Amino acid sequence: MSELRRDPLERRWVVIAPERGVRPLYARARESVATAADDCPFCPGREAQTLAEICALREPASAPDGPGWRVRVVPNRYPALRIEGDLARRADGLCDRVAGVGAHEVIIETPEHALELDELPRAQLRDVLLCLRDRRTDLYRDPRLRCVVWFRNRGFQAGSSVPHPHSQLLALPEVPTRLRRRLKSSRAHRRRTGRCLTCDLIAAELDDGRRIVRDAGGWVTWAPYASRFPFELSIAPRSDPGDFAALDAAAAESLADALQDAVRRVRAGLGDPDYNLVLHAAPRRTLAERDGGADFHWQFLLFPRLMPIAGFEWGTDDAVNATPPEEAARHLRSAAAPTTAR
Amino acid sequence: MSELRRDPLERRWVVIAPERGVRPLYARARESVATAADDCPFCPGREAQTLAEICALREPASAPDGPGWRVRVVPNRYPALRIEGDLARRADGLCDRVAGVGAHEVIIETPEHALELDELPRAQLRDVLLCLRDRRTDLYRDPRLRCVVWFRNRGFQAGSSVPHPHSQLLALPEVPTRLRRRLKSSRAHRRRTGRCLTCDLIAAELDDGRRIVRDAGGWVTWAPYASRFPFELSIAPRSDPGDFAALDAAAAESLADALQDAVRRVRAGLGDPDYNLVLHAAPRRTLAERDGGADFHWQFLLFPRLMPIAGFEWGTDDAVNATPPEEAARHLRSAAAPTTAR
Repeated sequence: MSELRRDPLERRWVVIAPERGVRPLYARARESVATAADDCPFCPGREAQTLAEICALREPASAPDGPGWRVRVVPNRYPALRIEGDLARRADGLCDRVAGVGAHEVIIETPEHALELDELPRAQLRDVLLCLRDRRTDLYRDPRLRCVVWFRNRGFQAGSSVPHPHSQLLALPEVPTRLRRRLKSSRAHRRRTGRCLTCDLIAAELDDGRRIVRDAGGWVTWAPYASRFPFELSIAPRSDPGDFAALDAAAAESLADALQDAVRRVRAGLGDPDYNLVLHAAPRRTLAERDGGADFHWQFLLFPRLMPIAGFEWGTDDAVNATPPEEAARHLRSAAAPTTAR
Repeated sequence: MSELRRDPLERRWVVIAPERGVRPLYARARESVATAADDCPFCPGREAQTLAEICALREPASAPDGPGWRVRVVPNRYPALRIEGDLARRADGLCDRVAGVGAHEVIIETPEHALELDELPRAQLRDVLLCLRDRRTDLYRDPRLRCVVWFRNRGFQAGSSVPHPHSQLLALPEVPTRLRRRLKSSRAHRRRTGRCLTCDLIAAELDDGRRIVRDAGGWVTWAPYASRFPFELSIAPRSDPGDFAALDAAAAESLADALQDAVRRVRAGLGDPDYNLVLHAAPRRTLAERDGGADFHWQFLLFPRLMPIAGFEWGTDDAVNATPPEEAARHLRSAAAPTTAR
């Protein structure tokens, strides 16, 4: 059984998840990444190789855990957290412990084995986003779960071991450090000014213009002022759209367009690097407090994985970034061919 | 000219350092790592390939920037920060900016090209530590510099591009996020209890025993309770030794022994992985307040780089760790051959 631990010096929650197994060294791990479609557990016809599906978008006549799906959500076979059990919160000397209660799900984004995110038909990515919305809403029905984090690891350097297009949801009984910090900053700003901090930051970026990569259809893509990594991008609605649960099909389709555009620029402009894509959206407690103005302007973060991270970064949680975001934005503005809708 | 930037949502300082150049992709970077001793800029006889030395431990008759040194400190050729100039602190809209004033130095730890940290004669590593102590003390004489961070990147996955044994010092005009958090935790604990938080944590670890790897000569090596990464280790003095500036030659020699033991265990027990080693020691402001009890029990952190870091970790600053520290400690307790002093 996994558990969450926190020590009083670092004040950071870590999921200790022995069921995920001792993972191997870089060299060995790289060799173990399956690339062949002919034994991929996420391909149609091999549904029995995953755990029973949680939900799927399927052809009307098709049965669960068989072919005929367009998007399929299954539990992670090596889950960091499990839905069964009590939280069993307790002190462990000066430290804190919570049982590893939560959920760890995989969204299989398409039946096709070898498509990149930007190559999916736009309507397919729209459906993935709506599926993410619905899973998140469903998981938040469980009062034990305080934060749902969605992330997508693409390629070995980004931590992926299965090339078939997929992303993951982790529903946690605690709010992660970085989201807590964002929440705190946003609330303080709201109290002081009555405004949304992210709205203010985006408006300032649009006024300045140097770090903007794209501004279209209500979505802004920019290289953040204090980017930790070279060519890091944020993708967010231009103004606070309310919770991610409110995303409708039309908005999801134009969001899909914005995400595909960002990935396309990174792939075209940077030599097709591995990358991570993460959604920062409201933890549970914010939702309840929404009427009090505790907002959380959600956004996607895209991190191309261009170089190893070194000791300074691990040791400090800060970073040295050799690519000013102004240069990153300039490069990525001109990086992609015009978007062609599919 | 580089600069430090902070946005109000993340509240994290990032050094934007364009002079370090746009660094290449993983694949290309890996190829560019020089391994041959015959063109190593850190080997004796090639002193002219580095910038002029800041200090060195040398044979009495030898001249600066020539052979005859045992430890040599030089400015980083691609510095993230420079000592010249004003801090020029200013607001940039909602964000903050400080000029990239500071220092970025390289400690060349031995004239020998191919020794690992644990293969250095112990007296050699003692001298490196004393040199680090002296450089840190010297840099803190500059009132603009608030925090000196020492780190050692070993191997490509740990961010190193030069295999010759060396480490780096970065002196910053701001205190990094993680050190600020440690400081805050330690002060709150001191106020409440009158005790050092790290002393309390180490005492609890020693009582428990399961996560202890080594306890000898006044130094404790343990796998922290909430380890973010598999086989992460902390190495610290058993009780608060005062500031790192107080390290004397005898303590440095026995610290060298503890550090070499930890590296030897990681190398022997985990298949010689790349790793980072970082010193967490007091930022400047703590030193001034020492009499008021604002302590900072320094420690070294050792991170073996066994696997890529994925989207959850980047997105949250937290982590999923598949190796419980109890297992890591058990494995590393039995990993190394007995220490042989040289």
